[in-house]
Amino acid sequence: MDEFSFIDSIMQKYYRQSSIIKGIGDDAAVVRPVNGFDMITASDTMVEDIHFRLATMTPYHIGYRVLAANISDLAAMGCDPAYYMVSIVIPKDWSKQQLQEIYAGMQDHAREHQMDLIGGDTVSGHQFVVTVTVYGYVPKGYARYRSQAREGDYVFATGYLGDSAYGLHLLLERGKSTDNPFIKRHQMPQPRVPFAQALQPLKRVCLNDISDGIASEANEIAQASGIDIEINFGDLPVRPEIKDHTLKDHKKWVLSGGEDFELLGTVSEDDWPRIQAAAEQTNTKVTKIGTVKPSTENPCVILCSDGRREKLSKSGYVHLQ
Amino acid sequence: MDEFSFIDSIMQKYYRQSSIIKGIGDDAAVVRPVNGFDMITASDTMVEDIHFRLATMTPYHIGYRVLAANISDLAAMGCDPAYYMVSIVIPKDWSKQQLQEIYAGMQDHAREHQMDLIGGDTVSGHQFVVTVTVYGYVPKGYARYRSQAREGDYVFATGYLGDSAYGLHLLLERGKSTDNPFIKRHQMPQPRVPFAQALQPLKRVCLNDISDGIASEANEIAQASGIDIEINFGDLPVRPEIKDHTLKDHKKWVLSGGEDFELLGTVSEDDWPRIQAAAEQTNTKVTKIGTVKPSTENPCVILCSDGRREKLSKSGYVHLQ
Repeated sequence: MDEFSFIDSIMQKYYRQSSIIKGIGDDAAVVRPVNGFDMITASDTMVEDIHFRLATMTPYHIGYRVLAANISDLAAMGCDPAYYMVSIVIPKDWSKQQLQEIYAGMQDHAREHQMDLIGGDTVSGHQFVVTVTVYGYVPKGYARYRSQAREGDYVFATGYLGDSAYGLHLLLERGKSTDNPFIKRHQMPQPRVPFAQALQPLKRVCLNDISDGIASEANEIAQASGIDIEINFGDLPVRPEIKDHTLKDHKKWVLSGGEDFELLGTVSEDDWPRIQAAAEQTNTKVTKIGTVKPSTENPCVILCSDGRREKLSKSGYVHLQ
Repeated sequence: MDEFSFIDSIMQKYYRQSSIIKGIGDDAAVVRPVNGFDMITASDTMVEDIHFRLATMTPYHIGYRVLAANISDLAAMGCDPAYYMVSIVIPKDWSKQQLQEIYAGMQDHAREHQMDLIGGDTVSGHQFVVTVTVYGYVPKGYARYRSQAREGDYVFATGYLGDSAYGLHLLLERGKSTDNPFIKRHQMPQPRVPFAQALQPLKRVCLNDISDGIASEANEIAQASGIDIEINFGDLPVRPEIKDHTLKDHKKWVLSGGEDFELLGTVSEDDWPRIQAAAEQTNTKVTKIGTVKPSTENPCVILCSDGRREKLSKSGYVHLQ
């Protein structure tokens, strides 16, 4: 298959987004941003043997998940996904079918969020690499930053934490053909787009997506906002299957297990009912897991557990205050 | 150097583009598109040992050139460059200094076009890969497409053709430390941004950038516009140093030598003086090299040389009509 018939095979027959003036087929794509909206854009790269192995992910899952990681960044900004661009470096020993399956995984996930493929590049190389750039829109001035947490805010998380890391653990133990909800969470994560969209009317909400574990993301919010975040370990939303394991594994998966692609957020006590309403409206589990405190010295994250207060580092390491 | 101090080292102290609301530092970048403009975006990937070798390019040149390839796509759409995003896969044996030199090459080139770095990703891998995504703006409805060539148009090219391919030939012969204008053209190509910008008031002009050789780009225009393009081989702008070589080498470099990043365009006879005025205003060499003809059967490119009319294929291969 030459370059041109390949491009033909991945080109959409029509575009869902009416703001696309020209998608694939020229030197660049052309879009007409809607007045009154800011544009959000992010880029994420996945490399074989670094971010995934073919032993645990099919090409379809790779495509599905690399788009998930990008869409999750858009959700964390509170925005509506719109387009994506894909650059792939493909090793010579990959088949045409494997390459097409990656695109199928991306296209299926894109369809769920009304996104369109507007361009990219496919080149050969020694190691598989995929870079996706995504684009979305948010009402002017309503992008959600990590710096927007304020003293007194409630801290909340969507869904369950640690599922993806536990799924990977099961995958390595049992192999990728296993039908299991944790494995599915790992291979086909669902970014929290509808929930983030339902929050758009709120004047202020701080959001960060959980791609590197809640320990890392909570620290990012604390540092960007100049506040302390207090998390009650017992309040973290964790499934019983994970709690059945040793506390060490449980903590590892929940605090620093990456790629849950849930949202971590903070909001004023007054607006907390609106978070709950958005959660109900979009069928999203949301749990209050802590509060925002004024920062004493350096902004940090405190994990409260069994009456102990420990400092939670970015990497998930805890030490007594 | 950890991820965070690295990000710190590449973060700009200020942004030149006032439309940037949030650059590097959150889950995604936020920009506020100016009303009355369309946004242009493109992505281009370069892989070590496929697109370049460290034997012929320094890390600085790699950075400079990957941005050039992307900016050239923006120029071919007639637009003003604005931002860029960089994803790099870096092998473990590359030094911190080499990585920083790549960014220095990009930053120096970005400064020439008032562009800002707004995000990206840096991950490790076995083979060096860099993907750049660029963003720019063009007055609403004024993007320049390959499909805009019309019967009777003049066909023109900027600068000189074949310089970059000849530069690579010299590099392979002499090594990368040689001080030579052709080698410089290969390592630090200059996309035709000012000229493309000066054409913005024109109602219609067809543009394509010469990244894969004029044979390929002219065929793209012919196919997209449904017309034939007639090129006079003797009119092609070629430097005497190239003409001194065998006709076979000369043709190879000029017709299918890639990465000159000049512009190939077509415009009505009436507007040709305005092309010449834009060229003069921006100190750009522009040469009329042919005309657009109605298509007989399948749109194609005809090369006229010494009274012969030959069909010029995408790859630069010619055969008698």
